[in-house]
Formats: sequence, C-alpha cells, structure tokens
Amino acid sequence: MAGSTFGNLFRVTTWGESHGPALGVVVDGCPAGLMLKEEDIQDYLDRRKPGQSPIATARSEADRVEILSGVFEGRATGSPISLLIRNTSQISRDYGDIASCYRPGHADYTFDRKYGFRDYRGGGRSSGRETAGRVAAGAIACKILRQLGIEVCAYTLSIGPVTVDPGRFDARAVRETRTAMPDREADERAVAYMEDAIKRLDSVGGVMECRVSGVPAGIGDPVFCKLDALLAQAALSIGAVKAVEIGDGTAVSSRYGSENNDAFRIQDGHVVKATNHAGGILGGISDGSDILLRAHVKPTPSIYAPQQTVDASGHEIEIRIKGRHDPVIVPRAVVVLECMTAITLLDAMMANMCCRMDSLERFYKKRD
Amino acid sequence: MAGSTFGNLFRVTTWGESHGPALGVVVDGCPAGLMLKEEDIQDYLDRRKPGQSPIATARSEADRVEILSGVFEGRATGSPISLLIRNTSQISRDYGDIASCYRPGHADYTFDRKYGFRDYRGGGRSSGRETAGRVAAGAIACKILRQLGIEVCAYTLSIGPVTVDPGRFDARAVRETRTAMPDREADERAVAYMEDAIKRLDSVGGVMECRVSGVPAGIGDPVFCKLDALLAQAALSIGAVKAVEIGDGTAVSSRYGSENNDAFRIQDGHVVKATNHAGGILGGISDGSDILLRAHVKPTPSIYAPQQTVDASGHEIEIRIKGRHDPVIVPRAVVVLECMTAITLLDAMMANMCCRMDSLERFYKKRD
Amino acid sequence: MAGSTFGNLFRVTTWGESHGPALGVVVDGCPAGLMLKEEDIQDYLDRRKPGQSPIATARSEADRVEILSGVFEGRATGSPISLLIRNTSQISRDYGDIASCYRPGHADYTFDRKYGFRDYRGGGRSSGRETAGRVAAGAIACKILRQLGIEVCAYTLSIGPVTVDPGRFDARAVRETRTAMPDREADERAVAYMEDAIKRLDSVGGVMECRVSGVPAGIGDPVFCKLDALLAQAALSIGAVKAVEIGDGTAVSSRYGSENNDAFRIQDGHVVKATNHAGGILGGISDGSDILLRAHVKPTPSIYAPQQTVDASGHEIEIRIKGRHDPVIVPRAVVVLECMTAITLLDAMMANMCCRMDSLERFYKKRD
Amino acid sequence: MAGSTFGNLFRVTTWGESHGPALGVVVDGCPAGLMLKEEDIQDYLDRRKPGQSPIATARSEADRVEILSGVFEGRATGSPISLLIRNTSQISRDYGDIASCYRPGHADYTFDRKYGFRDYRGGGRSSGRETAGRVAAGAIACKILRQLGIEVCAYTLSIGPVTVDPGRFDARAVRETRTAMPDREADERAVAYMEDAIKRLDSVGGVMECRVSGVPAGIGDPVFCKLDALLAQAALSIGAVKAVEIGDGTAVSSRYGSENNDAFRIQDGHVVKATNHAGGILGGISDGSDILLRAHVKPTPSIYAPQQTVDASGHEIEIRIKGRHDPVIVPRAVVVLECMTAITLLDAMMANMCCRMDSLERFYKKRD
Repeated sequence: MAGSTFGNLFRVTTWGESHGPALGVVVDGCPAGLMLKEEDIQDYLDRRKPGQSPIATARSEADRVEILSGVFEGRATGSPISLLIRNTSQISRDYGDIASCYRPGHADYTFDRKYGFRDYRGGGRSSGRETAGRVAAGAIACKILRQLGIEVCAYTLSIGPVTVDPGRFDARAVRETRTAMPDREADERAVAYMEDAIKRLDSVGGVMECRVSGVPAGIGDPVFCKLDALLAQAALSIGAVKAVEIGDGTAVSSRYGSENNDAFRIQDGHVVKATNHAGGILGGISDGSDILLRAHVKPTPSIYAPQQTVDASGHEIEIRIKGRHDPVIVPRAVVVLECMTAITLLDAMMANMCCRMDSLERFYKKRD
Repeated sequence: MAGSTFGNLFRVTTWGESHGPALGVVVDGCPAGLMLKEEDIQDYLDRRKPGQSPIATARSEADRVEILSGVFEGRATGSPISLLIRNTSQISRDYGDIASCYRPGHADYTFDRKYGFRDYRGGGRSSGRETAGRVAAGAIACKILRQLGIEVCAYTLSIGPVTVDPGRFDARAVRETRTAMPDREADERAVAYMEDAIKRLDSVGGVMECRVSGVPAGIGDPVFCKLDALLAQAALSIGAVKAVEIGDGTAVSSRYGSENNDAFRIQDGHVVKATNHAGGILGGISDGSDILLRAHVKPTPSIYAPQQTVDASGHEIEIRIKGRHDPVIVPRAVVVLECMTAITLLDAMMANMCCRMDSLERFYKKRD
Repeated sequence: MAGSTFGNLFRVTTWGESHGPALGVVVDGCPAGLMLKEEDIQDYLDRRKPGQSPIATARSEADRVEILSGVFEGRATGSPISLLIRNTSQISRDYGDIASCYRPGHADYTFDRKYGFRDYRGGGRSSGRETAGRVAAGAIACKILRQLGIEVCAYTLSIGPVTVDPGRFDARAVRETRTAMPDREADERAVAYMEDAIKRLDSVGGVMECRVSGVPAGIGDPVFCKLDALLAQAALSIGAVKAVEIGDGTAVSSRYGSENNDAFRIQDGHVVKATNHAGGILGGISDGSDILLRAHVKPTPSIYAPQQTVDASGHEIEIRIKGRHDPVIVPRAVVVLECMTAITLLDAMMANMCCRMDSLERFYKKRD
Repeated sequence: MAGSTFGNLFRVTTWGESHGPALGVVVDGCPAGLMLKEEDIQDYLDRRKPGQSPIATARSEADRVEILSGVFEGRATGSPISLLIRNTSQISRDYGDIASCYRPGHADYTFDRKYGFRDYRGGGRSSGRETAGRVAAGAIACKILRQLGIEVCAYTLSIGPVTVDPGRFDARAVRETRTAMPDREADERAVAYMEDAIKRLDSVGGVMECRVSGVPAGIGDPVFCKLDALLAQAALSIGAVKAVEIGDGTAVSSRYGSENNDAFRIQDGHVVKATNHAGGILGGISDGSDILLRAHVKPTPSIYAPQQTVDASGHEIEIRIKGRHDPVIVPRAVVVLECMTAITLLDAMMANMCCRMDSLERFYKKRD
C-alpha cells in the first residue's frame, strides 16, 4: 500500500532510494505566506549529512536541496512544495554480493518477500538516505513552529553505556559534538566507546531524546490520533528505532500512582504541573508542559565482522559487509527525530484549529 | 479533528463515553462471508469486563453486545458492522467534585483546554470504558486472523516489580489468573503486591506483552506505515500506555551489532532467523518470525490518597478521589492490546494484497 | 474497502440496512460547544421520512433519532456523536423472489458479484433507507453552517418534463408541496404526471437543485479536493443520481467564452460577479457567490410492470416487483442532497482554517 | 488543506506551477514488478503537450519526463515513483497586468482570497499545466489496467454545436485529429467553428467522453466511495469541467423507469445487460458493461476580446488578455480525463481485492 505519506493537513510524501538519481519530498498543506528559502532547509540537511566526522560513513553527499514548486517570491503559496535532492556520490560498484544475499538486521529479506525483488543498491528504499526527504520537510515544520513560539530539540541521550549527565546539559554542544550529545564530556567517552567497537569491526546502539517546549495545551485527537500515539508512529517509522518512550516511559510500569501522578498547581495565575512524569501529554492531549520523548536505536546492522546468513537461493553462507557505514546511527538520526516530531506536532496543531464552535465562529466572523 | 477512526481497509470507528447511554463501534471493510455471531464478540468483551476480581473495579457492567448491521444470516455482508453496548451500571451520583477540579494524571485539564468543557461523568470519553468498542472490533479482527492461521495473544508481563518467569509460561493461565499473567506463581506475588498498594490507598503500574504467531513475511508499508510504527500508534492510543517496545526494544540501545543482529539460516527449506531480537519485523515489514511487542502502563491515576491539585477557577485544592477504580490497569487492558494489535495487523495484511503486479493479475485472472 | 466514511475533519460514518434492526451514523469532529438536541436532527429526518404523501411509499417509519454519545448537557463535547434510528416497519414477508433474481436498475447483481452474496431484504445496504444516517449527520452540519451565516437549500427542480418556473419560486413551498418543488403550480402538474405514470405501473425521474448562500470566498482545496469535485462525489454517492452540474453545468459546453465568463465588478466596496454562470466556484474554490448544483435522478428502478431479467442460477425470467416503492425518488432525496452538500462544505471550511500562516499565528496568539 | 493527493492504494500526489522550474508527481503504491520505462509515460504526455496544432497554444514544451525513483532494472519496485517534468518554455515577461487584476472565469480572485496572494505567472497552480503530473501518473495506471485486460479511451464528443456521429466512430482518429474527435468529418466542422471563434477573439467549450471496456463486475465501494462518485470527483477536479454524466446522465431525469431500466439477460452463459443506460455502474459498483462518462468543459476563460473586471485594489477596469491560450480546452484535456479515470478505477480495483473472506484465505493460502 501507499505508505510514503504522513500527516493530513500538513502532509508529507517522501520518495527516493539510496542509489537512484535523486531523493525528495512533497510538502502539501504548508500554510501560505511562510517565508521560505533553500537555506532554511539546507541547514537541517547539513545536520543529517554524512561524511562529517570520523565516526560517520565516508560517503560524502552534498545533499543540496532545490525548491521546485510552491514558493513564489520567497513565500509559500499554499500549493505543494516539492523539494529535490540529487544523489551525487553513489559509487558504482558491484552489488552482486548484496543482491543475492540477505544481510542480518537489514530489510533485504523482507523487501524480497513483499515485493518479489528489490533495489539492492545501498539498501534501496530502506536506506537511511530515505530520511533526507523527511528532514527537508521537517525543516519547514520546524520553521513554522518556531514562529508560533515552539522549539523542537533532539539530541543523543546515550551511546552504548555512555549517557548524558543532565547536570552538564549544554544545548549548543548538540550541533558541535560528533555524537550530537549535549554534554561534551559524555561525547568524548562515547567516541572512545565507538572507536573501540570499530576496531572490533562492530557497531553500537543508542538513545535519542526530543524535547518540545512552548507547546500550547490542547493538541492531540483522542482516541486513535492521540498526540503521543502519532509521535510514536513517527518515531518508530525511523529505521532502526525499536522502542519509544513518552515522558518517564518504561519507568512508569514499576511505580506507584502516588509517585507517578503529576500534581497540578497554580503559577503566575496559570495551571502548571509540579512535575512532568507524563512528558507533556495527558489523555493523548498536550498539557502545556514540555513534551519529552525518547527513541531507542539498534546498533547499525552493517558490521564488518563476518556473519552467518543465507542467500536468495536458499544456501547458508558467510558474508563480510563492505562499503561505507556509520558504526552508530544515532548522531545522524537525531535531526530526523526532531523533524518527524515537528511534522507530527504541526499537523495536530492545524487539526486543532477547528475543534471548537467558537473557533469557527471567530474565524468566519459570524458570532451570534 | 476526527480522531476516532483507525485503519484504512479494515476501518474501526469507536464512539461513546463512560456514562452516556451506550458505547459502540462501526467496523467498515470487514471481509464479506465471515461467519459472525454476537458470541464471537461477547467472549472478548467478557475478558475486558469489570467486576470480575477483587482487584478490579466494583462497577458491574453486563457489556452485552448487539449487532445492528452488516451481518445477514450469520455472515458478514461487507457492509459496515455496527456494534452497540448499552451502559447499564452508571451510578447517578454527584460529580460536582470532579466537574470542577483537575485530577492529577487524568485528562480532565487537557479536555477542558481543548474543547472548552468536558463530560466529566466517569472520565467521559477518556474513560477506559471507551476501549469496549475497540475490543468488540478487535474480536472480529482476531477471528479473521485465526482463519488465516494467525494467533494474537497478549498477557501481563509484569506488575510493579513482579515479572513473569518465561520458564513457567502457561498460556491458559492468562485467562484464569486475576492479573492475566501466564504464570500462576507470579500472579500470586503480583496480587499480594497490589493488595499492599490498595491498603496504602495507592495504585500500581505494569507491562503488557503481545505475541503474534503465524504472521506471513511481507506485511507492512514503508516508510511511514511500517508495521511496527502502526503497532506503536495502536498501543500508545490505549490510555495510560507510556512506552512501546518491539522485540528486544529498549535493550537494543546498549548492544553491539554483533549481539543484536539475527542471523538468517535455512530450516526445512525455509529462511528463518536463528534468534528474534527484531521481534518479527525488519525494515518495517514482518519477517515471518513471531511479532513481539510490549506496552508499559502507568499506575491508575485515580488513587484514594489525598492529592494536591487545582480547580477550574484556578485555586489550589486537595482532593480525595472516590468511586470505583482498578488499582492496576494492566489485567483488563491486556485484551485491548491484543485487539488493537489484531486490527492493525489485519489492516496491513489487507493492504498487502495489492502490492505486486502478479497478485493483481492472478486476482483479476488476466495473466499474460 | 471501507467506503462508508466521508470527510476528514467533520467525518461521517454511516451504517445500516433497510431491514436490519437499526440504521445510524457516527459524526466525528463536530465542533465542541455546539448546542444540539434530538429535535434539531428529527426535523431533517422527518423531511426524508416515507409515508407522507400519496406519491411516496406506503412504508411508515417513525425514524426517531436517539443521540447515544458526544453530547453533554445539550452541547457537543467534541467526541464522536453516535445517532441511532431503529427500523420499526420492516414487513416480514417472503423475499425469496428478490433473493434469487436480479432486479433491473438495482444493485442486486453487482452486490452479489462483489461480495458473493447479499442482504436482499428491501435492498439491504443499497436501499434508500441508508440515507437516513446521512440526513441525521447533515442536520448537524446544517445547524453549524447556519450559525456561520450559511443557508443550504435543496428542492425539486423538475419531475419528468415538468420544471419549476424561476418566476414563481416560493421557498416555503419546498416543504409544503408533495414534490418538494418551490412552485405550487409546477407541483400540481408534476403530481398529475406521476399519477399517470403510476397508473401505467411505471416510475419517473427528475432533477434536484441545491443553492448555498452566504459561503465565504476561499473554500476548497485544489487540485483534487476542489470544492466542486467533492460536491460532485457527495451528490453522486446518493443512489440513483446519474449526473451532476455545477452552476450552468452542461450548458457551458456549447457556449462561447465571452458568454460564459462572469465579469467581476465592485458593489458596496466588495468584489462581486455580475453573473454567476460558474455557480459560485472558480478554480475549485468558492468565490463568494451562491453555490449552485444540480443532480439528475433516474426513475425509481422498482416498477410494477413485468420486466425481463435473470435469476442467480443463470435463467432468464420475467419478474413483477411487489412491495412499497416511491414512483419517483426526487422529493425525498432533496433533503439528502441538502445534507450531503452541507457536510461537504463544512468539512472544507474546517480544513480552510489552517491554510494561511497568519491564521495560525492569530489562532496560537504568537504574532511576530 | 492538503488537496494534491488522490487515491488510497494507488496514490498520486501532484505538484508544480505553470512557471516554476518543474512539475511532477509522486505515484505511491504502484504494484511491484510492473515493467516501466520513460517512453510508457512520454507517450501520454505527448498527447497533452501544447503546441501541436494551430488551434492549440503556441507555447512549446518538450514535456520530457524523468523517472527519479521507484523503478529498478526496468521494473517498479513498489516504492514511490517520482516523475519530474522540467518547465522549459516559460516566457519571462511582465506579468504585472495579471498580477494586479482578476481575470473573469479564472481562479485569480479565489486564490487571492484563500491564500492571501498567489503565484500569478501563467495561472500558477491553477494552470492547465498542473495536469501534466496527472497524465504522467495516469500513464502508469493505464499500463497496469491494460495488462488486466482493461482499455480506457477518452475523446472529444463535441465542440460547441458540433457533435461526433456515433455512426462514423473511428477510434484511430482520436489521436490524429486536431480536436481529438473520433470522427474526421466532425473534426473538420469543429475546426471551422473554432477558427471562426478565434477570429472573433473568442473561445469555445465542448464535451469529453470516456469509455472503459473490460472492467470486471464488482468494483466500487458503497456508500461514499461508489465508483461513479469517485469518477465524478476525478472528472470535476480537472479545471474547467462543470458537469459530469454517468451513462445516459442528464437524460435519465426525464425518462420513465420502463425506458431507463437495463434488462438483464444471459449471453454465452454470462449475465449481461440488454442495454447500458446505466453506463456500467449499478449501486456504485461496476456491472461488467462498459463504463461511460462525459465531462462538460467550459470555454477557455482567457479570451482576447476586452473584458470588464476589477483589480486587487478594488477598481473596475477593462482588460485584454495577452499570451498564449488554446481557444478550446477539450482536445488537450481528453488525455487528462482518460488518466484520471484510469487512476480512479485502478485504485478501486486494488481496494476490491480484500473485500471477501475467501479472497483473503486464497491469498494467504490458509483455507479451512
């Protein structure tokens, strides 16, 4: 089925494979009047771009975005915005080894079973490169949210056993460290951990966290389009993510109610929560506190150590994966989580505008 | 926005509040010809039904389902199936206390902020009773899946610190223990743990697990409608769920790739995986192994101990919640997770039928 | 596939068959705060109700609507509104004749081919009774639109050769004449025409027209969700409708551009059109003029004269249809067209609220 | 709202404006395994291409399509297919005249009212060039349908008063005549009629017809996704279409039932209809006969004669439209109707594959 579209009012359709001529996205429903230029988007793509650090893949892509439609004289027109990113660094090598075998932890086998065959070059549609389109779309969502006073910020929370220390949280470090950790000390230890894994031809996993501040209360649509439910879909749609937590997440299952409930109180005349175990969402609707979610990412399945697997003819074989692979997915996936969160939230905020009769009356200026 | 519909081809629309005259669901797209009678559905509703155990709420609802459409002479016609469950046990008491205050951990505040007011009787739409419609629909999905050789089975994995011992797994115990645990010994310890919490006017959390066996490889639609992404949406749409794990879930983030990859091998001429860390899904598509997911559930927010909160007029107050409340949500939510999993999987399986040209040609009998 | 849901933000899901226990609709996305009681809906159902005139079917249904959810203390809560209408007048007779044969002009054959069998009692899901749910939902849409200053009014434009004279247009006559014509003289001639047809065991067709006044400019979403495109889907989804015209409709195809273009001019400081050949929609977006659409309805396929057809076993047979049938569909379908128009327009108006950046900024009070 | 996506399983998202750098479409859900090359698509684009005849606009676009994704080694992979068409013939002239005024019959005014401003160059998104994306997508749908034994064929039925004579129907003429009429004699008269209109600086309207043969019975999903309802949406989403007829269309409203009903009979052991007034659709489901629909197209709103209108500042003005404009839209829109019909039908056929339990059991090979 058609699974490459996400969202209803702010609707994103991505396309493209790792080794095709290009990747891209169509953003339909972008509010007219938004000032938008390629730099706004490029900035986000650059954060996802490979080849920036010794721990990232050696593939070097310019990932230059081109706006093909929907923007006129620097402003979004309300018509679909088509964004194009040419693939420029595909190495034309022999993929015969991958073509005929199923790499452990990859989608080779499942694509073959579903579609009968697959574009095996660099993972095809299941490559991490697919996320370039999401990031391009998410850059637009982030810009809109910022104009509404909302900041979405994702970062690496842990890599293997190395976890960020909240006491050393440094937002600027996210874009400056090789791991996208907001803690320079943890970054150093994480890099050492990864370098050790690389030496042993292995890869490592990690955790990404995303915090959204400035979200108004009231966003989300029970019962199936609860904000947390859609954020979970968004996060788990990112390749290699295997678990999603909202607020305190898995920790809540071993707590008492008296520990876990967030007391309401009044601050400066507003209702606030004394704590935020809930991660900013109650009953599937934002409560005005920061939204907090975490996504657990498995280790890069492509490792250089030999592995047992099978080929398409049904023979058991040993493979050694070549090519260019990040030993850890997390640092480059952080911006993808940020973008998917922004897209999900913006779409829900747009839907929220028509949920009350007084909003309709005010908008259409026909008060009783 | 309209958030009470889930699925595209097998499409479920639930409606109803805790204290309205009735609850129900419309199931549109049920395959014609399915033998269906009220007993098929009642069996699932009975598992969700309150008042069955000392640890469950004292509210006693018959939860009798009535089929109002879409079934003729015992078979589904392909037209929408409307299922009605009358509320019969609403106690007509004074809700003034809840009406004017925001219970911690509940959706009172967020509903008020979103909609301007709320049906405060028993939690209204955000009550756990809303899930009756999901279970009724899920019973149909489960029946269809069983006819396709697929079993969906959810159970309680842990309550507070008490976890099921895989070595004592007993499937029959799920429907016989008060906790829905598949381990009679763990059940006893969990009950003791809950009884202690009840004495202290507190509540507890827990973890549900769902295992699906017999799933063919190839189900799921990258990149946004990946099977795991939709299962996560489905699970997190259940009230009180705060985290979802697929396969080994959160554990993968601290692993090496060499540990986490599932090797493929050949067994009886078929491709199988030597391990199943992935939980039956690779690249968002089922791989033929069992699908395994876990949902972490927060403690029941309604506790009898006094709590600090605010009222709708902006005053800080102390409340003591009365009424009938389960001290733990998990045992009754297990069947909801089972049903949401079944609905999600069936919808994806239906969509999968048209993803290949040879399938279309075979179906429409026009082979080249 | 699931085809019983219409709309995205104001989303309507109908269910029920002619001879099942009940019919109904779930309205999801109704703006919270709308004052709503059963009488608001009953008024519309009464207009669709059979048994009101000598030219209508003798089946007498009370068509009492019951609100089962989504309304609390007289106001819509924002949760799905479930509306139930019990069938009370099904005559339990032998349907063996219809069960085994395919009535010309009916959907008996196509339902059998699609679903493998069908609920043959009274036409099952393809009965005109299915529209009761649409009318119940449409009554809510109409009420909302009226509060926004918009009036939707449908009426019979012609029956067979008898057409309403615009010079005698009398809006009140729509609800008072047996034909729902806004012209009492045409009504008399139309009734005579139908009575003659009845004598000859025949049936007749006609045309419905719907006019919407007070629509703001700017509603509709190019390129596939143009307002006229969705109105056409809505109108043609009504059984027996075989053609839809917007504005001057079919007449435009034989015109010159100089005749057909509507000149813009200024009236009281506002842009208006000197004529309205376009029927209030330009480029798929409302232009502020009245929206005008017409739906052509075929003669009731159930006629009492003998007809040639085939049975399910493949034998050619002659049938004589018994039972209770309107000799013309139009007068009772008029309210269905009115309701489908209202639902379509309201959904588009809700979607329109988030199409501009300044609207988002105003709504979320974060202007630059 | 996001209105540039059409279809659910075979899902088409178009983008692009008349004078932007490019136009295109993303086709998601194309069945894997379909052999596809750019020539398959180019052939359809060439039929829509401007500059081919004295009666068509002088704008000359190569309209070369480029496949950017979703096809590997000549076959569709099941991943989204992105198709790109560069605009090459935009004349960079001064649009100041159009920018500040509202052309009668165009969407200038409505776009301004909806979005606050518009891309005025060549009509922007409301230009007929937008349909290039639809045609590219439709070429794929047509190819798939052909492999299933289904032919979709659209042609010009009339231009102004000149109508095709069914007795002279010549399918080959559709692609050879300047009017796309399947009648060479009518074509000559129509050209003369248009040339006369051009001399008088005027434009003319016409009617397109589309016939689909080979459609299996059973396609379409009551009650809102009836096949005719979706075809009507599809047809009316094409700019300048103001009316849609299915089968005998508007003619049915003045008929008797005895005239309009199509008798069933047996031919070669199959159920067939003796006539086809219904246009191949009964109750919203295909009946196995040819599907027949007509779309009425208004005269090109751009005429060279002076017209009264207003400018954006609220002044009444006279304009004379310059530029390159077809005096009639129909001949080039014929292929658009063909393509939209194919997309709609294919999507419905894909949805139809899962509507019966025996189909699911056969597909998943788990018969009882």
